[in-house]
Amino acid sequence: MENSTKIMNALNWRYATKGFDNSKKLSHNQLNLLLDAVQLAPSSYGLQPYQILVVTNPEVKEKLKAAAYGQPQLTDASHIFVFAIIKNYTTQHVDEFANNIAATRSIEISDIQGYVDTMKGTVDSRSQEELANWNARQAYIALGILLDTAALTEIDACPMEGFNNAQFDEILGLADKNLTSVVIAPTGFRSTDDAYQHLIKVRKSKEDLFIHI
Amino acid sequence: MENSTKIMNALNWRYATKGFDNSKKLSHNQLNLLLDAVQLAPSSYGLQPYQILVVTNPEVKEKLKAAAYGQPQLTDASHIFVFAIIKNYTTQHVDEFANNIAATRSIEISDIQGYVDTMKGTVDSRSQEELANWNARQAYIALGILLDTAALTEIDACPMEGFNNAQFDEILGLADKNLTSVVIAPTGFRSTDDAYQHLIKVRKSKEDLFIHI
Repeated sequence: MENSTKIMNALNWRYATKGFDNSKKLSHNQLNLLLDAVQLAPSSYGLQPYQILVVTNPEVKEKLKAAAYGQPQLTDASHIFVFAIIKNYTTQHVDEFANNIAATRSIEISDIQGYVDTMKGTVDSRSQEELANWNARQAYIALGILLDTAALTEIDACPMEGFNNAQFDEILGLADKNLTSVVIAPTGFRSTDDAYQHLIKVRKSKEDLFIHI
Repeated sequence: MENSTKIMNALNWRYATKGFDNSKKLSHNQLNLLLDAVQLAPSSYGLQPYQILVVTNPEVKEKLKAAAYGQPQLTDASHIFVFAIIKNYTTQHVDEFANNIAATRSIEISDIQGYVDTMKGTVDSRSQEELANWNARQAYIALGILLDTAALTEIDACPMEGFNNAQFDEILGLADKNLTSVVIAPTGFRSTDDAYQHLIKVRKSKEDLFIHI
């Protein structure tokens, strides 16, 4: 099958899965592909200002469900991805990234000093609220890559903002890690009973969505 | 080749392309695939609170380049995607979405009144600034889908936040359309001269990026 047909079939196949089959789990290879893809998601300057929790512990999933208004995806899905941005974001995080660049590419920090200074200037010029919104946007790119990769490999997912962030942070011990949750995606396999899979997808028409100049 | 290998090859192949070959243009089919994929990007409640400009006009691209600190991607890339969120977001936009759901699925608005009321409640509970940040996050999911789809079909792209939003809005006439630009992605084909394509990709290690619970 042609590549573009495969991609469109996958994007048409996916939907925000409400009913997961709790007997089906991601295989080791399936999970690893999702982790590999999310690891390669691009971000502004390459900073990846987030961490991602992958929750399978049944007791923790029960607590998360209670903190997500009882939505069954939290317990029925195989693996719960929780995207958490770095909360208090500082130039120290830029330094960590700079060290990673230097180590990965076998260069000196001084070779990329201009780039490092630019990044630090950006961080210093923004309030913590602005940094949080900036960081969250980067996490949403990674979410997009996760959802796309899942669809391409017939793994179901449900991107969700409808949960109590503060309670999630508490349950997952995020405050101690200088993290705060912004969006989640239970992943696994749809239940044959989930009626949502049969609904026609609703999207803006091309005319309403795109402006050609 | 196995599906997962293809996906990882694509994500490893892509990079934030700085040097585009200005003689190479997206074909009709290549552009259409990118538009089709972005159209299917998921968003909170399905609202798609954005429009996307696709710029090919050379004079406009020159102006955008000047408003993006002279970065050559703006003129050398084939098609410039500009993600613009709806600026003053109101329950009227929820009504438009509700009308689209009803028309697409051949149902009455009254059949989805609870859903519509929930969405309106969310919109009403948020300030315009909160709505703008919410809407921008949705646009970044679509950006992720665009970048992934491009990579899978060997189209290059450069996600960019480094441009003057106000000037972009002015050049593209966005204020009159109740839109404001949040992120852009020139798309096309890398130049063989672009040294960035040879750099080793820098990412957080799995241990630094993921927390398994």
